[in-house]
Amino acid sequence: MQLLKTSILIILVSLSLQIKAQTDEAIFKDIYKTALTNGNSYEWLDHLSNQIGGRLSGSYNAEKAVAYTKEELDKLGLTKVWLQPVMVPKWVRGAKEYAYIESTEGTTTAVNICALGGSIATPGIGVKAHVVEVKTFEELEALGKEKVEGKIVFYNRPMQADLISTFDAYGGCVNQRYKGAVEAAKYGAVGVIVRSMNLRLDDLPHTGSMTYDDLPNDKRIPSAAISTKDAELLSSMTKLDQGVKFYFRQHCKQLKDVQSYNVIGEIRGSEFPNQYIIVGGHLDSWDLGDGAHDDGAGVVQSMEVLRLLKVLNIQPKRTIRVVLFMNEENGLRGGKKYAEEAKQKNENHIFALESDAGGFTPRGFSFDCNAANFNQVLGWQHLFKPYLIHFFEQGGSGADVGPLKKDTNVLAGLRPDSQRYFDYHHASSDTFDAVNKRELELGAATMTALVYLYDRYGVNPISNPPKIKN
Amino acid sequence: MQLLKTSILIILVSLSLQIKAQTDEAIFKDIYKTALTNGNSYEWLDHLSNQIGGRLSGSYNAEKAVAYTKEELDKLGLTKVWLQPVMVPKWVRGAKEYAYIESTEGTTTAVNICALGGSIATPGIGVKAHVVEVKTFEELEALGKEKVEGKIVFYNRPMQADLISTFDAYGGCVNQRYKGAVEAAKYGAVGVIVRSMNLRLDDLPHTGSMTYDDLPNDKRIPSAAISTKDAELLSSMTKLDQGVKFYFRQHCKQLKDVQSYNVIGEIRGSEFPNQYIIVGGHLDSWDLGDGAHDDGAGVVQSMEVLRLLKVLNIQPKRTIRVVLFMNEENGLRGGKKYAEEAKQKNENHIFALESDAGGFTPRGFSFDCNAANFNQVLGWQHLFKPYLIHFFEQGGSGADVGPLKKDTNVLAGLRPDSQRYFDYHHASSDTFDAVNKRELELGAATMTALVYLYDRYGVNPISNPPKIKN
Repeated sequence: MQLLKTSILIILVSLSLQIKAQTDEAIFKDIYKTALTNGNSYEWLDHLSNQIGGRLSGSYNAEKAVAYTKEELDKLGLTKVWLQPVMVPKWVRGAKEYAYIESTEGTTTAVNICALGGSIATPGIGVKAHVVEVKTFEELEALGKEKVEGKIVFYNRPMQADLISTFDAYGGCVNQRYKGAVEAAKYGAVGVIVRSMNLRLDDLPHTGSMTYDDLPNDKRIPSAAISTKDAELLSSMTKLDQGVKFYFRQHCKQLKDVQSYNVIGEIRGSEFPNQYIIVGGHLDSWDLGDGAHDDGAGVVQSMEVLRLLKVLNIQPKRTIRVVLFMNEENGLRGGKKYAEEAKQKNENHIFALESDAGGFTPRGFSFDCNAANFNQVLGWQHLFKPYLIHFFEQGGSGADVGPLKKDTNVLAGLRPDSQRYFDYHHASSDTFDAVNKRELELGAATMTALVYLYDRYGVNPISNPPKIKN
Repeated sequence: MQLLKTSILIILVSLSLQIKAQTDEAIFKDIYKTALTNGNSYEWLDHLSNQIGGRLSGSYNAEKAVAYTKEELDKLGLTKVWLQPVMVPKWVRGAKEYAYIESTEGTTTAVNICALGGSIATPGIGVKAHVVEVKTFEELEALGKEKVEGKIVFYNRPMQADLISTFDAYGGCVNQRYKGAVEAAKYGAVGVIVRSMNLRLDDLPHTGSMTYDDLPNDKRIPSAAISTKDAELLSSMTKLDQGVKFYFRQHCKQLKDVQSYNVIGEIRGSEFPNQYIIVGGHLDSWDLGDGAHDDGAGVVQSMEVLRLLKVLNIQPKRTIRVVLFMNEENGLRGGKKYAEEAKQKNENHIFALESDAGGFTPRGFSFDCNAANFNQVLGWQHLFKPYLIHFFEQGGSGADVGPLKKDTNVLAGLRPDSQRYFDYHHASSDTFDAVNKRELELGAATMTALVYLYDRYGVNPISNPPKIKN
């Protein structure tokens, strides 16, 4: 009799587990099917990219994007939608930059450059000087003031092509762009030209943020990015002709901070409304392209997560927010502001997911969390496998959600295929036509699926095991 | 003492295993690094696509491609390179097709079509008839002769967007294209228009092969593909206006078979020269684009496998061949011919790998093999993980290698990301610029890595276990 009872119990428990498993699988199927056949992310991205365009912090376009995304969120029937004020830096590019290489004989070759975000302008007549090429700050230091003073420093360390993650290759180069001017100014350089962060050889300069740290105004020097093909040209010309000079002119300017907004929408949780799950991307972008991949894709995918939950009638137990951050590119003011207010209001953010790596085929997620929480994630991997989502690793998450980090919560970043990302990143090629509809939609579905799991099971695998009734 | 001896033995065995593991890992690293930093596949593809172009079987371009790839293989220092003669069908498109929809009032709207490969021409003045739209052959049968006779049958079943593998979606639709004319002819239709096999809505017609089976010449009807946008237009117009007619004109023709070639190169194996491993793609392509993804990519990746082995000084134990097959698209004559000769010569083909699914980021492989052999593959998965190769499944391989199937050997197909493939497949958009250099190179490296493993360990996991010396 006891044996029979035990057997029945085992059968019931097995059935219950099976039903639970089927339910998650069925919901995943609904999520992916709806995203691929009845999605809205691509239409939103079309508007953001083609009707609005590049959305540099403080620009008219950035404000249009705030108004547009709020209006679209308003249509979704969320619990509430609001704007969170945040002051942002306003840097403007001004008239198009101009540059050429001048040989000893005085012949000139025009090259493609763009000012780096945050750089000062050149004098109105431009800067012309001899060029010193380096690959590292160590090389620059070894050259010293004697060889650098009065010259333009040309940083030409390429992205490492043999790294499989192009983000790793970016990480290995980006200090040239971000810190190049500060370092070169130490030795009396008059300007900085940086090889674009691009694995391809092409004609496009790629902008991006740079810093002067606490350098006084009169020590600041203008810095610009040069296309990879022109970087190769400049490098070979300086090797053939010691007398080569570089000329560039740019008109950019840092204005006073201006008022802007994070755009936030939420579905209030039915059981644990004080546990917050957020999903987001950043509304601002650089100005050269449309910001379709960086980060229009993350914006519309995050909006799509909440839309899919509504369309599929999934009433979350926890409060789920979409946060469209302002000013990731040159200040991170939106991300900081959001975390500040969350702290003030003592909001318990258990999980935050950012999409800011392009609208390409999703491969998985990177998780910033402790080992126990990562183990919980590993238990979910099999649910994602039918959708070809295989990448689950501990690592970074996203810049905007970073300030929410606590010991006990989980931050994550969507990890799309990275091979083509730096063909577009911060360049004029980052436009709507470079985004594939299905790839974008698969990303949105994958984010929704993970948000669904965190809503259903919570974050802590010890305090919230899947409950088995017997 | 015995315990000490055993311990030492265990340590030695562990070390030996470790060294072996490190060696495979180190070779993988070399393969990927060389492919990404010193590859040749992209340059070859540039030539095939831009200097030669579309390579329809029997065309001048196809012969140019034979000569070019043989010449390039000759430069690699392989054991030998040769041409394998094969007779191929020669179908020509002729002058550009023309089509329009005509409303009851007589207004016309031009639409984008292309003849399907193998189709007959329309009469010189074209075909104009009322349209009957169906989604399946069952629908067609239900309509019967009464409703179909004298009309143009319009097959409009779209690819299923919620399938994650776009090849599954293709498989679910392609019978409309391949068999549509035969089926429609049964009921007296005068022509066939098929919705292009494309998940996007755009203006491009996608060609592809069709058959008349054994239909006598006088019963054959012309068939063409229509772009997805125009398919939507035609469908909505026929619903609004019962009197709509469709007009099309095409000038294609099936000529007599002509002589062509498979291009083959091999590195003779040092230990087991009578065990053959082959890697291949198909040289022929459709004529509308450059055939860059289908299958220029597979051709240059396969050539790159042998080039990488040479560059890395990997002397294979088994004989490794690259086979560039002719006529995959409309006849498979090259694949059949190769298998026939292999059988005649009693060549033992233990492993054959084809790349014919586009030059996109590789995700893994599909294996046509028995369970024991698939288990061997699963033991290698961890080696591929650092390169984000996660997909290892039993299934199909490639059309050209298919005829080599035996119970004991392994056939495999490279499986790149499939989301964008049908944006280009058999359409004028299948051009060089749609291929990303890194993605192409990663595919070549991934193929090389698998070929390396099969060469090192052989195919049968039972008769060829990794040997441990003690």
